[in-house]
Amino acid sequence: MPHRFPLPPGSMIGVLGGGQLGRMLALAAARLGFDVTVLEPEPDSPASRVAALTLEAPYDDREALKTLAATCDVVTFEFENVPAAVVQQLETLGALAAPGKRPLAIAQDRVDEKEFFRSLGVATADFAAIAGPADIRAALPRLGGRALLKTRREGYDGKGQTWVEGEADAEAAWARVGKKPAILEARVPFVRELSVIAARSRNGEIACYPVGENRHEHGILRTTHAPARLSAATKAEVEAIARKTLEALDYVGVIGVELFELEDGALRVNEFAPRVHNSGHWTLDGCEVDQFEQHVRAVAGWPLGKTQALAEVTMTNLIGSEANDWKALAADPSARVWLYGKREARKGRKMGHVNRLKPFGEGDA
Amino acid sequence: MPHRFPLPPGSMIGVLGGGQLGRMLALAAARLGFDVTVLEPEPDSPASRVAALTLEAPYDDREALKTLAATCDVVTFEFENVPAAVVQQLETLGALAAPGKRPLAIAQDRVDEKEFFRSLGVATADFAAIAGPADIRAALPRLGGRALLKTRREGYDGKGQTWVEGEADAEAAWARVGKKPAILEARVPFVRELSVIAARSRNGEIACYPVGENRHEHGILRTTHAPARLSAATKAEVEAIARKTLEALDYVGVIGVELFELEDGALRVNEFAPRVHNSGHWTLDGCEVDQFEQHVRAVAGWPLGKTQALAEVTMTNLIGSEANDWKALAADPSARVWLYGKREARKGRKMGHVNRLKPFGEGDA
Repeated sequence: MPHRFPLPPGSMIGVLGGGQLGRMLALAAARLGFDVTVLEPEPDSPASRVAALTLEAPYDDREALKTLAATCDVVTFEFENVPAAVVQQLETLGALAAPGKRPLAIAQDRVDEKEFFRSLGVATADFAAIAGPADIRAALPRLGGRALLKTRREGYDGKGQTWVEGEADAEAAWARVGKKPAILEARVPFVRELSVIAARSRNGEIACYPVGENRHEHGILRTTHAPARLSAATKAEVEAIARKTLEALDYVGVIGVELFELEDGALRVNEFAPRVHNSGHWTLDGCEVDQFEQHVRAVAGWPLGKTQALAEVTMTNLIGSEANDWKALAADPSARVWLYGKREARKGRKMGHVNRLKPFGEGDA
Repeated sequence: MPHRFPLPPGSMIGVLGGGQLGRMLALAAARLGFDVTVLEPEPDSPASRVAALTLEAPYDDREALKTLAATCDVVTFEFENVPAAVVQQLETLGALAAPGKRPLAIAQDRVDEKEFFRSLGVATADFAAIAGPADIRAALPRLGGRALLKTRREGYDGKGQTWVEGEADAEAAWARVGKKPAILEARVPFVRELSVIAARSRNGEIACYPVGENRHEHGILRTTHAPARLSAATKAEVEAIARKTLEALDYVGVIGVELFELEDGALRVNEFAPRVHNSGHWTLDGCEVDQFEQHVRAVAGWPLGKTQALAEVTMTNLIGSEANDWKALAADPSARVWLYGKREARKGRKMGHVNRLKPFGEGDA
């Protein structure tokens, strides 16, 4: 397909992945008059039921990729584990992918990701690349004697990671992560986790949403509160990190950057997600232009939209059976309910979320 | 299908009609975890591209109606000209339609509609039922010598209506509306047109959005400004009219009621639409729960959502070629852009709309 930007309404946007992020991207695209084609291996996916077309096929299915390349004006993804080879293949077939191969490749490897941030002068946890238990034993003293071992690739919501309790645990920890190439990270003594959702347009314009404060439970995001209460210096530093990251990656689209704040206010970047991000769901009810519309605007070559918060928002994920409380939530006037259309409320599965708004100034006396 | 309310997420909602109202209903349904099946005769309709399933068939297609009845937990419509026989057939097939046959039947006949309002003690324009030019000549003196002739059935956006300029014009006017059963309405010397979007739940709960002030051009809605500046008495009267109407019809869903305000503040009801309404599009960006979600909540047996305005909103329709200005609108940070995915920008066709928000208090000094 020829790529001329800004894409006119009626253009087709391809989305790799049919989960809730793909679903909310499709809803945002529809509001702007775009159509969406979803590529997703699983049948009856959340995004497929709001997309103009769904290709139910593996991500590397050659025919499906050909169809995407032939029919989509731009192709994006809703998750970061799309094989880089797939994006390469799409580009070879003449498709335009956004954000491109490089952000995807870096985000897929935790060592590359940390080295990328270091190269920008952005502080991260101390770390070591691990190829076996000997590496763990060698790095552990420097990393504080107790450190977090994570597979370099894949793993999310706390999966594929384990604490190494000491040198004697090296062998067992290596087994616990499946004896896969890994990263060993020093413990970060953070007081809270922050994240920033930012976007970069095709013209290089950058916009940051107000910073969110995140709380996790069992490795899964539980709540985001935004705008977080921050010093002006911290806010400026978070935005500078987002800006540097977007520019270094020549990024197009929405990115989520997670950071740890230390007791003295210093920041350590944890990771970035080259996509819309769970900690940005508060924008769905808290901003005129939410992160999904912002991503669609960016990849379609439109100017970015406003990122100001209209109210304070607390976003709470509905995980597993919590979504069974939909009746009470439906009756709660303070709850803006979002449900993802997943058929089965499996343990740990993100089924929906709720945004609760508080007008600015209320209760601030 | 068995009907148990409130409908759980994952339920299927049928929508008769695949235009922009159906599209925005489908988007709202998806946010709450519902799926949508659209019945629409035209191929490639705006709603079909965001629906889980589309039945491309005439509204009275027996097989399509059987499928709707067998698979949908509730069936609703996006326009009021669905033949009442279709709703009857759906009900015979075991489907539940909301709002039901009676609001539809009354809204489809301008004389029945006016008589319905009269029966509630709600003032309308003076009128006469017309079966031929003799009726026009007979009624004209009582109606002020110059009056508006409209077909009793069908006609929207100013189509199917004409001014009768005097008794001598009776024959020609009768021909201009196609010699169809008609209504002759006295001119209403209104200072502005208002409308109210209201909803009634399955439990009889009623909620009104703030009243909107409408401006028409060439018979088509041009802008709605909401909340309209009204006296407390007028606001209360508008809400009382909406409430009476919903209760008298045992209504379930969202209704739009159009009214004329006279110089002395008196009101005359013009008509009601048994569906979501163009003059309620401001709620998409001006309220936590917009009219589309409100309608889905009501027909699904959920409690109604909040109707407070978060800001002052001016909604402007994009008609015909105006949608070609999408590039400028995309770049205008004050414009919340909604485009309907219609392939062809025909003259007079509603292609999208724009909401512009003004926080309360701004410029009110």
